[in-house]
Amino acid sequence: MTTPSRIAVDAMGGDGGIAVMLAGVAAARRRYEGIHFYLVGDEAQIREGLATHPNLTAASEIVHAPDVIRSDEKPSQAIRRARTTSMGIAIDLVKQGKAGAAVSSGNTGALMAMSKLSLRTMKGIDRPALAALMPSLGETDTVMLDLGANTEVDARNLVQFAVMGAAYARTALDLERPRVSLLNIGTEEMKGTENIREAAAALREAGHLRLDFRGFIEGNKLSRGETDVIVCDGFSGNIALKTVEGTARFVADLLRRAFANSIRSKIGFLISKPATELLRHHLDPNNHNGAVFLGLNGIVVKSHGSANETGVATAIGFAAKMLRDDLIRRIAEDLGHIEAKAA
Amino acid sequence: MTTPSRIAVDAMGGDGGIAVMLAGVAAARRRYEGIHFYLVGDEAQIREGLATHPNLTAASEIVHAPDVIRSDEKPSQAIRRARTTSMGIAIDLVKQGKAGAAVSSGNTGALMAMSKLSLRTMKGIDRPALAALMPSLGETDTVMLDLGANTEVDARNLVQFAVMGAAYARTALDLERPRVSLLNIGTEEMKGTENIREAAAALREAGHLRLDFRGFIEGNKLSRGETDVIVCDGFSGNIALKTVEGTARFVADLLRRAFANSIRSKIGFLISKPATELLRHHLDPNNHNGAVFLGLNGIVVKSHGSANETGVATAIGFAAKMLRDDLIRRIAEDLGHIEAKAA
Repeated sequence: MTTPSRIAVDAMGGDGGIAVMLAGVAAARRRYEGIHFYLVGDEAQIREGLATHPNLTAASEIVHAPDVIRSDEKPSQAIRRARTTSMGIAIDLVKQGKAGAAVSSGNTGALMAMSKLSLRTMKGIDRPALAALMPSLGETDTVMLDLGANTEVDARNLVQFAVMGAAYARTALDLERPRVSLLNIGTEEMKGTENIREAAAALREAGHLRLDFRGFIEGNKLSRGETDVIVCDGFSGNIALKTVEGTARFVADLLRRAFANSIRSKIGFLISKPATELLRHHLDPNNHNGAVFLGLNGIVVKSHGSANETGVATAIGFAAKMLRDDLIRRIAEDLGHIEAKAA
Repeated sequence: MTTPSRIAVDAMGGDGGIAVMLAGVAAARRRYEGIHFYLVGDEAQIREGLATHPNLTAASEIVHAPDVIRSDEKPSQAIRRARTTSMGIAIDLVKQGKAGAAVSSGNTGALMAMSKLSLRTMKGIDRPALAALMPSLGETDTVMLDLGANTEVDARNLVQFAVMGAAYARTALDLERPRVSLLNIGTEEMKGTENIREAAAALREAGHLRLDFRGFIEGNKLSRGETDVIVCDGFSGNIALKTVEGTARFVADLLRRAFANSIRSKIGFLISKPATELLRHHLDPNNHNGAVFLGLNGIVVKSHGSANETGVATAIGFAAKMLRDDLIRRIAEDLGHIEAKAA
């Protein structure tokens, strides 16, 4: 494409503040071709920060925002400050069509609420969902949604999540016909809640959709690479994703303790450093950073609050890829297929 | 205590069949003092199996059962065959007061349904729950419940699970006043479903209970050792527990791949074998095996279907300890405290 992807970055959100966000944007500028950035936040601070990133001058534009959403701020409060905050203004740039996507490392609840209010839910979608990539033993990462936008869902929501998740996997993972599974507490048809069984029945019938429905998947199989998209309610999804994160850290901590246990093990650890580094690289959340709100009329990517420069660049890369692949149009097409079938 | 703990073992359930079950009982006999066993199953097969375990002869009694519950049998079918199956007869020995506890590695749903029907739910408990121990970085394991007995729960159920889980932690982990947390998707008061928030409000008021309520805990903190009892609905609990299991295996698999990646790493791996063995020992589910159905008028322990000899012995050890510590009476006492307070 000749026209650049235009991405609005909330330069103020995230634990590391403006320095990490700008370093992340600069890294994305080095890593990806053809992105133009709107850097939204305190103009003086951004200008000062840019001094150390000369590669950004030609590729970015500062949009001043006098205020910032705090990380502990309630969504209901945050939405009242959409017009003056860096997060709100970044989303508004998407709404106005100036930017194709917004990226923020700030308060998730606020970002969700503001995005929904400003960009509105797509036709055919009852509720947007938060999706992210998880590392797996397979050839690609695995998409998982919803990760916390909806604590309770019905069968219809789950089917819509499946459609959106498959469209996302087609762009983020370059898959033709992604395998989709519903998270459940067993693999037999009778297992789980009525909502899940009903969603499974609907997906089994949905041969016209561009996805390959594989039935139920249990918590112990999330990382096996046996499916491409894992669909669930936001409560269990959030628990499962954080449990993966916590357990990986737990095992790494146990391993560190065990290695520190004897001189022999310490020596072994030093020798096998390339192996443990490889593991660390594979599991580093910064290499999978960037959850996306699916189901809105615009692309909003949530970068982890603790993401570093690499993480922010990864999240920006996802946003750019979704823009290039025209994700929103793809989802709309798939929803059209459901409607056509229903009619 | 001078009278032995009497434990009924379903000798037929589990992937490894009768050989693994008897080897597990024999290992428990060597490991723990003063247990008398009822070995329930096909008499001829058990007698034949006992030939290789002479230490069991004086300590066990065979109870013949002509039939076995299959692992894929629906609970609704299984309960009709309670009187003729090894699982049903083992539970009945508890009901009759001949045994203090039953242990089975068979079909979980069938075991739950049969136990509930035969032993009945305790006064003051609306629904029994399945509890188990998870490895943690703390000084003791962590109790988690419900793990799948109830896919949907209300606030009252969650409070009862907290009381039962705390009583279980006092006996299984020898804790005076266990720390109890509710699993949630955030730690702020407003997070999660209404049921969870309501349960939290009730537990915050419950200073008279022998537990220390610590609020909400997220999925990434399950293994940190920051709490002793994690309370949740059976759907998320099952997902979380299996996700811990799957992720630990995933990290171990990645590590194996990484170690196999170069000769240098292979050598490092061999040298650090004591460390990786320590890790394997700590994470081996057989060392934490034995989920217990809490809230029934009797003790029923579910051993994992794939448990080996060590795992079966561990599950039997839990059953014996609950008997010695009079767990059922303890739970009843705590429920009495709730009622007294309510009155």
